[in-house]
Amino acid sequence: MLKHYFPILTWLPHYHRRLLGADALAGLIVTIMVIPQSLAYALLAGLPAVVGLYASILPQLLYTLMGTSQTLAVGPVAIIALMTGAALSAVAEPGSALYLEAALVLSLLSGLMLVGMGLARMGFFSNFLSHPVISGFLTASGILIAASQLGSLLGIDSSGFTLVERVMTLVPNLASSNVYTLVIGAGTLLFLVGMRRFGKRSFIRLGLPDGVADLLTKAGPVFAVSVTTLACWHFQLTNQGVAVVGDIPAGLPALSLPSFDVALWKTLLIPALLISLVGFVESVSMGQMLAAKRRQRIAPNQELVGLGAANLAAGVTSGMPVTGGLSRTVINFDAGAQTPAAGAFAALGIALVTLTFTGWLHYLPIATLAATITVAILTLVDITMLRQTWRYSRSDFAAMALTIVLTLVEGVEAGIIGGVTLSLALFLYRTSRPHSALVGRVPDTEHFRNVERHDVEAPKNAALLRIDESLYFANARYLEDTVYNLVASRPEIEHVVLICSAVNLIDASALESLDAINARLKDSEVKLHLSEVKGPVMDRLKQSDFLDALTGRVFLSTYAAWREFQ
Amino acid sequence: MLKHYFPILTWLPHYHRRLLGADALAGLIVTIMVIPQSLAYALLAGLPAVVGLYASILPQLLYTLMGTSQTLAVGPVAIIALMTGAALSAVAEPGSALYLEAALVLSLLSGLMLVGMGLARMGFFSNFLSHPVISGFLTASGILIAASQLGSLLGIDSSGFTLVERVMTLVPNLASSNVYTLVIGAGTLLFLVGMRRFGKRSFIRLGLPDGVADLLTKAGPVFAVSVTTLACWHFQLTNQGVAVVGDIPAGLPALSLPSFDVALWKTLLIPALLISLVGFVESVSMGQMLAAKRRQRIAPNQELVGLGAANLAAGVTSGMPVTGGLSRTVINFDAGAQTPAAGAFAALGIALVTLTFTGWLHYLPIATLAATITVAILTLVDITMLRQTWRYSRSDFAAMALTIVLTLVEGVEAGIIGGVTLSLALFLYRTSRPHSALVGRVPDTEHFRNVERHDVEAPKNAALLRIDESLYFANARYLEDTVYNLVASRPEIEHVVLICSAVNLIDASALESLDAINARLKDSEVKLHLSEVKGPVMDRLKQSDFLDALTGRVFLSTYAAWREFQ
Repeated sequence: MLKHYFPILTWLPHYHRRLLGADALAGLIVTIMVIPQSLAYALLAGLPAVVGLYASILPQLLYTLMGTSQTLAVGPVAIIALMTGAALSAVAEPGSALYLEAALVLSLLSGLMLVGMGLARMGFFSNFLSHPVISGFLTASGILIAASQLGSLLGIDSSGFTLVERVMTLVPNLASSNVYTLVIGAGTLLFLVGMRRFGKRSFIRLGLPDGVADLLTKAGPVFAVSVTTLACWHFQLTNQGVAVVGDIPAGLPALSLPSFDVALWKTLLIPALLISLVGFVESVSMGQMLAAKRRQRIAPNQELVGLGAANLAAGVTSGMPVTGGLSRTVINFDAGAQTPAAGAFAALGIALVTLTFTGWLHYLPIATLAATITVAILTLVDITMLRQTWRYSRSDFAAMALTIVLTLVEGVEAGIIGGVTLSLALFLYRTSRPHSALVGRVPDTEHFRNVERHDVEAPKNAALLRIDESLYFANARYLEDTVYNLVASRPEIEHVVLICSAVNLIDASALESLDAINARLKDSEVKLHLSEVKGPVMDRLKQSDFLDALTGRVFLSTYAAWREFQ
Repeated sequence: MLKHYFPILTWLPHYHRRLLGADALAGLIVTIMVIPQSLAYALLAGLPAVVGLYASILPQLLYTLMGTSQTLAVGPVAIIALMTGAALSAVAEPGSALYLEAALVLSLLSGLMLVGMGLARMGFFSNFLSHPVISGFLTASGILIAASQLGSLLGIDSSGFTLVERVMTLVPNLASSNVYTLVIGAGTLLFLVGMRRFGKRSFIRLGLPDGVADLLTKAGPVFAVSVTTLACWHFQLTNQGVAVVGDIPAGLPALSLPSFDVALWKTLLIPALLISLVGFVESVSMGQMLAAKRRQRIAPNQELVGLGAANLAAGVTSGMPVTGGLSRTVINFDAGAQTPAAGAFAALGIALVTLTFTGWLHYLPIATLAATITVAILTLVDITMLRQTWRYSRSDFAAMALTIVLTLVEGVEAGIIGGVTLSLALFLYRTSRPHSALVGRVPDTEHFRNVERHDVEAPKNAALLRIDESLYFANARYLEDTVYNLVASRPEIEHVVLICSAVNLIDASALESLDAINARLKDSEVKLHLSEVKGPVMDRLKQSDFLDALTGRVFLSTYAAWREFQ
């Protein structure tokens, strides 16, 4: 039982020196790599940069104790930071004490929800976020985040959380952009894009081994941060109006309980729920993908508990909402992490930095961080996905397009809620008008196919009607119409066989409709039969009076029915 | 085209004298029969009694022009009256001018929605009201309405629109109940119940023909109204505190446009939508049932237009929301109505009464009307339905029980919305965890059945997995888990055949999952095959790259796959 909630107990007893070496190295690499992004994501959420560091310490340690993925790295991530910023700026002014307070409440709420969902085994909830909605949301968020960084890159102010708001506050100030900031921002941007595109190839051409080339490429942001910080310090560019991270209080965050203001908690309820779900989906997809690569498994419900615990930890240590991050996890995995201990080493590393080296970050230009975010985030924008989805399914495309448009125009919450609602509505609409087909026997087999698509043998006085959907309230009346129209259009029919191979459920409403069909066909002297009724469905029907009233028979196979009427 | 929107053009040209006789008689009988209930339902909605008469004139005439049912009678009905009362008392004080005004706005809004839904061919929307929700709603409404009449029967005041509110306002005043009112109310109640139970049988025993006996039984309320009104007038019981209908302005209602107060319209939007849907469902179920008896058809979308026009008419002639009513339609049908002309005759009859005889209704006791409503409405309460539904399906029972409880405790809107939401949620939850079965061949056939339920032949190195659900985002990940667990638990498997006979849709999310399954099985050197993929699903798959990447084959039938691996 204890092992179930603390998976560390399953792997720590078998821990040995070789694992320690690999994990410690991975931890060191992650420490260095994730500092720039941790600072950047905190700024993205409208919080002081140091909050990003705080949120990478205790939350990661708790995930090490309670998470089931061997390689997931937990901390602030871009999407969640964006959603956090949107939620917080609705209740407080960025920079105010209330804003910081609300960030803690949001973390705590999100933590409580995740733990609650995990204990209630409600991990399946995240399944209702469809791929098109997620990928539309990621694309739109990427555009939104990139737009949000334009101000910082140009050295002018912009605010708001929809694309329109951003652009409206940006454009009037374009003339006042700061040249030094622009040079740092654009320079870093070009450097990082260049590294991504040509870095690894160039290093390999210089004779470096594959792994080292990869690591050096990924260290691009660390290099950019170091160079621009030194430049800013050496030339004292702050005097020229270049915005920098500024003073960061040295030392670890104090433990504190956030406020229990009921009104504030209520306002943050929906945002916290969405942040939890989106964070969980991002984290669990990542975790499953990497677990599959190494033939390991993760337990989604325990993942909820682990991520929840991490958020609770963020809520009491001046942090912000966290989850398993895409880029930090990939760095951890590629650096050779073997167990969650690597995460613990990274957390200790970041704690060490927070204790001692924060002074070094004073001159780090905001524009450098903005460039880092922009380059990282634009990989989320996936335009080819739009074309593929359009080609495959108009419904899926509609859900994706709505998610993108709503996210850009109305904000992240509206985007997700709108996309999920439309996906569900389209699915329900589809199941409410089921496809059905008259079938006949494929010659010399016991296999039955649509009479309009295949050359098959259909009996004359009987209609073999295959219903391609579970029968439930939304399509019960449609089924009646289908059968009545069939019988009305073919007066020679004496038997109707409903082929139930695709019927996985007959609910009470559909049962009433079947009763009605049976009675009405009886009036017209047409017999109603069923075939290929599945076990679970048959069990249910036996609980009702329908089988007693049925004018025809229940055939095990459609072939048996066909032989009867041929 | 014109015939489509005005079905009267299809039957009026063939109208002849024999039909005229039947329709005129039916119209006369309906006129007499529905006056008490029309007055009663207006009072139930908190409106002056005469509004019930107004709402039975022009609305019925418009339905005659535009409706597709030959026998539906349109006017105020109990459920809609109850919902109207609940909606109006949320925006105005009963008896105030605003209350009357709001009733017109509600009719007009409901009319606009119905016409709009009809023109947009959205009749299918009503399919989402499942049988358990409707029958739960009717049962709870019956109880609510009966409780609402207790005050009038006892001669004391009660108000509120939930059961608790009713009882809370009733109990403290029990001591002050009026004896005369009690005698009239209880007497009428007993008389009507007696007539229902023994009336027809007794009349037949007296030697009357079946039809006459039936009609006399149904005339019970008319008899009770006449006797109690005469008694009240003769003994001047108003002086003893018996509440009566009072003065009714003689003459037809004036044409008037309701107010265009935007705030009022907005508040009434949701109630109007629910009134429209519930009214449509009641009306169309009734219409379909009776049409089926005479082998006629109704057109649901044109029904929406017809009922919408009727409500628009109610909105401009001092009426209230109307629909095709259960009891008035049955009276019309049984009285031998042949065409919608019977409705027109009834409308003219009621117009005549409104013009000339309203003075006679002055002394009609409210308690008599309350007894009429109570007896009529208690037929809606269907307790055996609860037991049947419990036996057949726990999900359906849950939706029904929630609808009943919410309707009683929170009111009619909460009941319907809660019930529908729960039905949909349970359906979605069910489809998100699909049933699946490993199948094998029933010996000497080409038919395949669950290995756990039947004695079948299953191949050793291949798993034939039948998935009993369409594959879409909510169950895509569940499918992955199912397949991975299967392969992990049976290492001897070299082939997995997904039997798609029950798969009616593969959406973009499920396609990604299939891609992932295919890739992962490939890593483990297991081939993935499909069988019995339906035409429409196959058409879609051909639009994607999945079939190119598929490691195995697509078999036309499971038998073909079985032969391959046996």
